[in-house]
Amino acid sequence: MKLYALIMAGGVGTRFWPRSKEKTPKQFLKIFNSKTMIQNTIERLEGLIENENIFVITNRIQKDEIVKQLSNIPAENILIEPFGKNTAACIGLASIFIEKLDPEAVTLVLPADHIIKEKEEFHNTLNVAAEFAYKSKGLVTIGVQPTRPETGYGYIQIDEREVEEGIYNVYTFAEKPNYATAVRFLESGDFFWNSGMFIWRVDSILNEIKEYLPELSEGLQKLKESFSSDDFEEILDNIYRKLRSISIDYGIMEKSKKVFLTKGKFTWSDVGSWEEVYQLSQKDEQGNAINGNIYADMTMDSYVYSPDKFTALIGVDNLVVINTKDSLLICRRDRSQDVKKIVEHLKVNKLDEYL
Amino acid sequence: MKLYALIMAGGVGTRFWPRSKEKTPKQFLKIFNSKTMIQNTIERLEGLIENENIFVITNRIQKDEIVKQLSNIPAENILIEPFGKNTAACIGLASIFIEKLDPEAVTLVLPADHIIKEKEEFHNTLNVAAEFAYKSKGLVTIGVQPTRPETGYGYIQIDEREVEEGIYNVYTFAEKPNYATAVRFLESGDFFWNSGMFIWRVDSILNEIKEYLPELSEGLQKLKESFSSDDFEEILDNIYRKLRSISIDYGIMEKSKKVFLTKGKFTWSDVGSWEEVYQLSQKDEQGNAINGNIYADMTMDSYVYSPDKFTALIGVDNLVVINTKDSLLICRRDRSQDVKKIVEHLKVNKLDEYL
Repeated sequence: MKLYALIMAGGVGTRFWPRSKEKTPKQFLKIFNSKTMIQNTIERLEGLIENENIFVITNRIQKDEIVKQLSNIPAENILIEPFGKNTAACIGLASIFIEKLDPEAVTLVLPADHIIKEKEEFHNTLNVAAEFAYKSKGLVTIGVQPTRPETGYGYIQIDEREVEEGIYNVYTFAEKPNYATAVRFLESGDFFWNSGMFIWRVDSILNEIKEYLPELSEGLQKLKESFSSDDFEEILDNIYRKLRSISIDYGIMEKSKKVFLTKGKFTWSDVGSWEEVYQLSQKDEQGNAINGNIYADMTMDSYVYSPDKFTALIGVDNLVVINTKDSLLICRRDRSQDVKKIVEHLKVNKLDEYL
Repeated sequence: MKLYALIMAGGVGTRFWPRSKEKTPKQFLKIFNSKTMIQNTIERLEGLIENENIFVITNRIQKDEIVKQLSNIPAENILIEPFGKNTAACIGLASIFIEKLDPEAVTLVLPADHIIKEKEEFHNTLNVAAEFAYKSKGLVTIGVQPTRPETGYGYIQIDEREVEEGIYNVYTFAEKPNYATAVRFLESGDFFWNSGMFIWRVDSILNEIKEYLPELSEGLQKLKESFSSDDFEEILDNIYRKLRSISIDYGIMEKSKKVFLTKGKFTWSDVGSWEEVYQLSQKDEQGNAINGNIYADMTMDSYVYSPDKFTALIGVDNLVVINTKDSLLICRRDRSQDVKKIVEHLKVNKLDEYL
């Protein structure tokens, strides 16, 4: 059994404006330390997966930056989607490249821009899941133990009787709940956060795609036949253009009868907003997470980023302040989700220089 | 009777950081319209005082900018103090220059960076005061009718029986009061805001200086004798160096027996803080005074200045936001007075590039 990783790195991250722009999405930002989110994602696999077995799938715009940031990953492992067509197509495309090397490859599918704190616990979870995925040919999702009634995540409900140690059957996938439902999920004990991390054999996922997404499967089949063609990119373009946009969750996981869950007992976040970044950051005695050239007087419970310009704060609290070279965001922390509305505003008004 | 104006323009304006810097104090800023505060001050005299009778007294650092901004004022009317020695010395020095032209000159002394809204009412007030000052040889202050229990201004108490139409004897000068006292002043009806605007004959003020500030008077006498000397500047330096720093209020007005008051019935402000700027600015339906390239969502009762960079605000209220090329201020409106603490912080920490 050989472990591979597939890092999905095509996100745009409109909720991290003005740090994330079209050309610098969240995965390219140094948010929590001196490395970027995608560098942290790769580093977190150290000791578990060899660099030559790590694949990254992205788009044309981001490719060069990824090659630059991930200089230890072989350049031929950086795959390109011609268009974004949601996760089912993305995973399908990457899977045929991995299949070429090893049809029984156990592949860990990971988003490039999440945070996980305890590396050892993370590796333990992956090892349990990988072994089971290899043996059972099932699709294993990593469900994170909820710690609060979060309404920003999808949930997965399990049958609490273990299939084997650490592995559970999945009853159902639940969309992002409202608050009351999230409280009920939290109290029930058998609902887990859908982390978007999966482990499976590459032949298993391709079989399930054949069963549940036959159109995608046909496209992948044609691509496999064109691997050595000079026109591969053109063929890829033509096939991709016609594909439906569908998520792996909706297209496969919610339908397949071979879905299992293993519990992730580490600290995980999809880092979905500046509020989430604040929560995950170290705070000083005033509850501030401050980064840069800052004067703060009677200022509390705020996240402030101002690496270049000097920022002075007096008498404010519960703010997110992001002061970049060309733009400034001042947002109440509990309104962080609305940052994406600014990006919409900029698009509608063709203020492209700030996007 | 000929009217002269003496504009005092030496202020630094630390409370308007980061717009006011050492080289761009408040009087040089365009705060309320397309002209700077000092340009507005001069323009406000149009129709009342000829440009060649307007004198401006400033310091070496600001002189060039003043000459540039006030191109319609003769360059020889821009006087320089070698050091700041408070208003008594400043007024004394300017007065001997004006005395040379016209010993009976009726001089209106004005700060360069205040705001007055109703020009006609202002002129009417000055005309009444000027006529009385010429005739009586008294010192006339302009007291503004208070509209709120302001603790940021000094007050002047009058004897409510008119000396003649629109002219009152002054009982006493009161320092900036606490809130309870300010309420009492407001209710009493005989306390007026000390606007820092005075009208007198130049011979009158020089006589009072002789009586109450003999040291300053001697210095001025020596300077008069050196007017045509090649070493005038050096002599001025030497005399100024030894002078006490004392305000005209404390040195003369509170002691002189020839002090009168005329009521200013126009809208006046010394524009002492960003809060004051907010109050004096036009607001939109959300109570925001916004200037620049700004997106505001659920944002209320705030003053926002961002002429160059793009600023986005979500869910905030009662803020002052000043976003300049190199610095950013975010301050709760009711804490505007503390902006000067930032300037102290920058000085102490030798962050001169932001001063």
